[in-house]
Amino acid sequence: MAFRSEHLLGIEHLGQDEIVSLLDLADQYVDLNRRDVKHSEVLAGMTQINMFFENSTRTQASFELAGKRLGADVMSMSMQASSVKKGETLIDTALTLNAMHPDLLVVRHPHSGAADLLAQKVNCAVLNAGDGRHEHPTQALLDALTIRRAKGRLHRLSIAICGDIAHSRVARSNILLLGKMENRIRVIGPPTLLPSGIDEFGVEVFNDMREGLKDVDVVMMLRLQRERMDGGFIPSEREYYHRYGLDAEKLSYAKPDAIVMHPGPMNRGVEIDGTLADDINRSVIQEQVEMGVAVRMAAMELLVKARRARPREVLV
Amino acid sequence: MAFRSEHLLGIEHLGQDEIVSLLDLADQYVDLNRRDVKHSEVLAGMTQINMFFENSTRTQASFELAGKRLGADVMSMSMQASSVKKGETLIDTALTLNAMHPDLLVVRHPHSGAADLLAQKVNCAVLNAGDGRHEHPTQALLDALTIRRAKGRLHRLSIAICGDIAHSRVARSNILLLGKMENRIRVIGPPTLLPSGIDEFGVEVFNDMREGLKDVDVVMMLRLQRERMDGGFIPSEREYYHRYGLDAEKLSYAKPDAIVMHPGPMNRGVEIDGTLADDINRSVIQEQVEMGVAVRMAAMELLVKARRARPREVLV
Amino acid sequence: MAFRSEHLLGIEHLGQDEIVSLLDLADQYVDLNRRDVKHSEVLAGMTQINMFFENSTRTQASFELAGKRLGADVMSMSMQASSVKKGETLIDTALTLNAMHPDLLVVRHPHSGAADLLAQKVNCAVLNAGDGRHEHPTQALLDALTIRRAKGRLHRLSIAICGDIAHSRVARSNILLLGKMENRIRVIGPPTLLPSGIDEFGVEVFNDMREGLKDVDVVMMLRLQRERMDGGFIPSEREYYHRYGLDAEKLSYAKPDAIVMHPGPMNRGVEIDGTLADDINRSVIQEQVEMGVAVRMAAMELLVKARRARPREVLV
Repeated sequence: MAFRSEHLLGIEHLGQDEIVSLLDLADQYVDLNRRDVKHSEVLAGMTQINMFFENSTRTQASFELAGKRLGADVMSMSMQASSVKKGETLIDTALTLNAMHPDLLVVRHPHSGAADLLAQKVNCAVLNAGDGRHEHPTQALLDALTIRRAKGRLHRLSIAICGDIAHSRVARSNILLLGKMENRIRVIGPPTLLPSGIDEFGVEVFNDMREGLKDVDVVMMLRLQRERMDGGFIPSEREYYHRYGLDAEKLSYAKPDAIVMHPGPMNRGVEIDGTLADDINRSVIQEQVEMGVAVRMAAMELLVKARRARPREVLV
Repeated sequence: MAFRSEHLLGIEHLGQDEIVSLLDLADQYVDLNRRDVKHSEVLAGMTQINMFFENSTRTQASFELAGKRLGADVMSMSMQASSVKKGETLIDTALTLNAMHPDLLVVRHPHSGAADLLAQKVNCAVLNAGDGRHEHPTQALLDALTIRRAKGRLHRLSIAICGDIAHSRVARSNILLLGKMENRIRVIGPPTLLPSGIDEFGVEVFNDMREGLKDVDVVMMLRLQRERMDGGFIPSEREYYHRYGLDAEKLSYAKPDAIVMHPGPMNRGVEIDGTLADDINRSVIQEQVEMGVAVRMAAMELLVKARRARPREVLV
Repeated sequence: MAFRSEHLLGIEHLGQDEIVSLLDLADQYVDLNRRDVKHSEVLAGMTQINMFFENSTRTQASFELAGKRLGADVMSMSMQASSVKKGETLIDTALTLNAMHPDLLVVRHPHSGAADLLAQKVNCAVLNAGDGRHEHPTQALLDALTIRRAKGRLHRLSIAICGDIAHSRVARSNILLLGKMENRIRVIGPPTLLPSGIDEFGVEVFNDMREGLKDVDVVMMLRLQRERMDGGFIPSEREYYHRYGLDAEKLSYAKPDAIVMHPGPMNRGVEIDGTLADDINRSVIQEQVEMGVAVRMAAMELLVKARRARPREVLV
C-alpha cells in the first residue's frame, strides 16, 4: 500500500508515491463533498481532537468538517497560547487528551517542532495543522491538488512562490512538495523576507516580480506574516503592494493561462489586487479552500488505515 | 408546495402561506423534541455552519440543537466583530466557508443587511439569525407559533409590542409577520425609543402603557438594546421600569387571559417584573424558547427541500 | 436496580450500592474506549448540554467525549462567570436551556450549591462537574475506579489526601466516597490549608508528610487552588514544595507499592516532582484521565435509565 506514514507531521517525510495516493483519494472526496449527502462512515466510532494554540477559522473549520463528514466524533479545543505555559504544558495537555483515546490529534502551535514533539508522546496519529515557521503539510497538499486539477499534472511546471518566504511554513511545505514532484520552483520577494540559505532548497531566487513571474504556470502568493516578524523589518503596506503585490500588470508576465493562488486569509490591496483575487478566470483561491476539506479527509483516512495495518502498540 | 423561499432573510419576503406551512411543520417538531429520542435524519449528511458575529447563547444554542437533532453535521464559529474587519472580510469569510460546501449557513451580524449580502454570494441556503436593526425572522416565527398555540389562532388578535422599538429587529420582524397574518398591532414606548416613520407600518402608536395595553390579547415586551444606542438617549433603568416595565398592575389593563412574552435575555426589574416573568399562568417566555428550536428545525428542513426542488445551480 | 439517583449532584447522596454499580458499568466503558470503534448508541437521539462557568479543558473535554461516544447530540457552552450576573442569571440561563429539552445538563460553576439549585429548576438530569468548594462527584468516582483497578479493591485501604484540602471540592468528594466504602483516610496539609471541622469527617489529620504517608496504599495529591484563596494565606511555591510537594523521598514512607494520584492540571515542582509524576511504576495520573471518560459515560447512562424508570413529570 502506497501510504505508510502514521503521522502527518510535514511534507519532508512523505514519499512521492504517498503524495500521489493521498491526492488520488482526495479527488474522490471532492466529488463526495459536492453532493447533497456529503457524509461517509470511514471514521465512524473514532475520535478526532483538534488542539489549536493559534486561532485559525479556516484551517480549524476545514479539519472539523473533514472529520465530521467521515463520521468521527470530533472535539475542537481552542487553547490560547498566551494562557498556556509553553513546553511542558503542551505535553501535559497532549498526554491528558491522549489518555482519552483519540484516534487522531490535529495540532496547530506557534512553535516549530511542536507537532513532532507530540507525535513522540501520544499513541494516536498526529496531524500537523501548522507549527511555527516549520511546516503546514495539509496546505501544501491542498495546493498540490488544486494545481493538479487546474493544470492536469503536478510535474514539470514552473511555479513562483511570492512574498514573505522567510516567515512562511506554507512556502516551506510547498517548496518541499513541489520539489519532490519535480517542478521548477522560483521564489520571489524582498531580500529582507527571504530566508538565508534559501538557495539550498533547489529554487531560483528573484527580487523582482516581473522577472520572476516570466512564463510561470502558477503564481502562489503568500500572506504577510506580521505576527511572526519579531522586531525585524516590516515593510509599509503601500510600498509592499507597489513592488510585490500581484496585479494584472505583473501577472501579464506569467503564461497567459497561469493560475493565481493564495492560502488565505488575504490582505487585499497588500499582497494581491482584490479584483484579481475574485477573477474566476485566473484565481483558484476558492478551489484551494474546497480542496482543503477533501485533502484532510483523505489524510485522516490514510493515517488511520496505515496505523491499523501495523501491530497495535501496547498501551502503557 | 407552499414553501418556496431558498433563504430565510426576513419576514418581509415570506408569503402568508409559507408562514403557515412553516408553523405547521414546527408543531410536529415540538412533539418530537418532547420525546426521549428527539432526533431525525432529515438533514443527515448535510452540513450546517453557524457564523455568529455577535454573541448569543440562546439563539446559537437553538440553531445548533436544531441542526444536530435533524442529523446534520453542525459547526459553530464564533467571530468577534471587533477583530474582524467589516464589509469585505465578512464576504471573504463567507466565501471561504461557502467553498467548504455547507448546505445551510446561519448568520448573525451587527450590520443590517449582512444576511442579504451573504445570500447573494454563496451557493447555499442562508438563515438570518439577526442582522443589526433589520430582521430576526426566526424570532418572529417562534413568537407566532407561541401565540398560535396559546390563543388557538394567529389572526384577528390585538397585540402590543412594548419598549425599545427603535433598536429592535425583533419588533420589526414581528410587526411584519403579525401584519401579514392580519392582526391589530400596537407599539408602546417612549417617543425616544420609537423609530420615525413607525406609523407607516400600519400600527397604532402609544406612549402610555396602560392606554396601549387596554384589552390586548398578547403583551410582547422587548429587551432594552443599550448596545445599539450609539450616543443617543439612554433612559435610567428605574425611570424606565416605572413607566414602561411590565408589572401586574399595568398588565391588568390587558384582557384577563392575555399572555406575556419576552424574547430574552430579560433584564428583570427593568423591562419586566421578575415574579410576573415566572408566572406560568401569564408568561409564555419558556414556551418561546421551546418553540425556537422547533421553528428552526422546520425552517431548515423547508429551505433544503425548496432548494432541492429547483434545478441545481452550476458551481463556479 | 442499584442506581436510583436522577441527578449526580454529589457523592453525599449516593448509596454504596450505587457507587459500585456505577464503577462496574464504567469498567465496561474502559474496554469500549480502548477499541478502534469506541461508540455506542445508548444516548442516541438524546441531548446533552454542557454549561461551564469556569474554564476546564480537561473536564469539559471528558464530558463532551463521553456524550459523543454514547451517541448523544452534545452542545458545550462556555460561559464566562465574569460576564454573567450571578444567581438570577444562572437560573435564567438554565431555564432557557431547559426549555430546549436537554436530557442531561452538565454544570460547572464557581459557587457552591449551584448544581443543586439547578436540579430544582429543570426537568432533566443534572450532573455536577464541580461547584465552588462543594463537590466534584465524577472526579471522586474516577479516582475510585482508578484505585479499584490498581489495588484490586476499594475498601480497607489506607489513603492519604495531601495539600490544599481547604479549597478542594475534589478532597471533599473523595473523603465522602472513600469513607462510604470503608477506607482509612488521612488528610495531610499545612494548618492554614486544612478546613476547620475537618476532624468530623472521620479522617486522621497530619501536618507532616512523612508522618502522614507512613504505610499508606494510595497518595492522592491535590492542586493548589490559588484562585479560591481570597485574601488568605498563600504559601510560597518553593516553601510549599519543600514541605508538602511529593517527591521520591517523601513517597518512600508509603507502602512500596503505593500509587500516586493527582486530579490535574499539575503544577510540577510545586505539588509534585515532575519525574515522579511521569513514573509509570508509581503514578496513575494518566489512568485517572482515562477513567474519567468511562465514569462519565456510566453516570450518564445510569441517570437516563433511572429517570426513564420513573413516571414522567408533567411538563409545565
